[in-house]
Amino acid sequence: MTEQTALINGEIDAVISPRDRGLAYGDGVFRTLRCQAGRVLAWPRQYARLQADCERLGMACPDEALWLADLARLAPWDASIKLMVTRGVAARGYACAPDAPPTRLVLAGPLPAYPEALYRDGAAIRLCDWLLPIQPGLAGVKHLNRLDQVMARREWSDPAIFEGLMRNARGELVEGVMSNLYLLQDGCLLTHPLTDCGVAGVMREMVLQLATELGLPIVLRSFDADVMLGAEAVLLSNSLAGVVPVGRCGQRLWQDFSLAAQFNHRINSLCREESHLCLPV
Amino acid sequence: MTEQTALINGEIDAVISPRDRGLAYGDGVFRTLRCQAGRVLAWPRQYARLQADCERLGMACPDEALWLADLARLAPWDASIKLMVTRGVAARGYACAPDAPPTRLVLAGPLPAYPEALYRDGAAIRLCDWLLPIQPGLAGVKHLNRLDQVMARREWSDPAIFEGLMRNARGELVEGVMSNLYLLQDGCLLTHPLTDCGVAGVMREMVLQLATELGLPIVLRSFDADVMLGAEAVLLSNSLAGVVPVGRCGQRLWQDFSLAAQFNHRINSLCREESHLCLPV
Repeated sequence: MTEQTALINGEIDAVISPRDRGLAYGDGVFRTLRCQAGRVLAWPRQYARLQADCERLGMACPDEALWLADLARLAPWDASIKLMVTRGVAARGYACAPDAPPTRLVLAGPLPAYPEALYRDGAAIRLCDWLLPIQPGLAGVKHLNRLDQVMARREWSDPAIFEGLMRNARGELVEGVMSNLYLLQDGCLLTHPLTDCGVAGVMREMVLQLATELGLPIVLRSFDADVMLGAEAVLLSNSLAGVVPVGRCGQRLWQDFSLAAQFNHRINSLCREESHLCLPV
Repeated sequence: MTEQTALINGEIDAVISPRDRGLAYGDGVFRTLRCQAGRVLAWPRQYARLQADCERLGMACPDEALWLADLARLAPWDASIKLMVTRGVAARGYACAPDAPPTRLVLAGPLPAYPEALYRDGAAIRLCDWLLPIQPGLAGVKHLNRLDQVMARREWSDPAIFEGLMRNARGELVEGVMSNLYLLQDGCLLTHPLTDCGVAGVMREMVLQLATELGLPIVLRSFDADVMLGAEAVLLSNSLAGVVPVGRCGQRLWQDFSLAAQFNHRINSLCREESHLCLPV
């Protein structure tokens, strides 16, 4: 598994057209998946989200069988996998050709190496200055228009900082650049509703499902940085890292990381139960 | 000049990497240019904007000499040219590699055929429902995150409708999907200031410069659809079509298109004066 393994519309080492609408307009969606010992974790949820996001943009989503054939072709063992769908190749202009076939892209690469200390001692995070725009029309969708995340990520280069938190134009803390965000407060799990901005991750869906099983009431509401700094615990999640406890934000330190550990224990089981085994062809 | 002519980093028929950040995140900028009888119109302004937009995103902009060599290579006669710069090819994740070379793309294709009637009888336009988000950090920049334009353009398929006007979340009319927007009202030329959303086109810069020469005071302020419908004239502009007068929006008809004609007369001269002749290599 090299950094460069890519399948485009099922072809190894195929290329992206310079006229692909994914490049021209960011006209597409993606998902990031974790593959562990040959199993793509949480596959049914990942595919369901990909389909739902394509539908939000009015795009055709390639059939599940095509993706599974691609995954069998790549036969990843331990890998990070990125799936991408764009509205395909088109002539100049914003208008969509109604019958243009979508571009289907699968990229496989090594898993990022998250140190054990990240889970044991918690992550160091920062607040980003770059604001997320309010856009209910695209809220929740994991689309390819990610300049806001790029610009926010440019604010720091210190490798000790794991993540930057992003606020929207109303000053609400929404999510991290690459993760969803949760607070433990008064025995409840708070997270932004993501109805007018933000990305609804598959790991977020799992966290919310498991919170109920852990007896934690879920509160979907907005909160600002002061509420975050006053929370009993702060958690981040994404599909590659699972649930990451926050240990430090500026001068504020947290020390009890047991909730993240509980989540990860259950999420690992659930991810395996719901995984898809990539049998090599 | 076929639809498919593309130069990528100076190479004919080169390809876009599936790991290009332009595709992954829309992490780049573009310009659309009109080439007429071998001259790229308004070249110095187009290049200045491209540079300024790269700077806004903290990206390197390829030297002017490289673009001019590309244009000489393509030797377009009558053509629409798209220039694109992305932050290049990178490993997974939002963080930018500081020294990654940008991807430089030049696409050439035929000029769209605008019927004479468009300028003689005015364009039919509509109001889009899709809203532009407020994002001062990216306002004015012609970046590759264009899903809002894609979604707005999906609202109509009637070929008789030339353009759809877009409002922002405050209900202000900002621009068209593919053009800037101006009103003639009480002897002034009104246009949105584009300080918190919108794309600052090169043609807009020319229109504002020529308005002063035509004795028309410029008013940069926001306005809503009712103000637009009450205006004495409504104009659109972009680099391919020049200035297009609006003839109809729903039941509202306009009939005096002399202002657009005056602008086009002067813009044509100015564009030629400021053109770059593509001498074939």
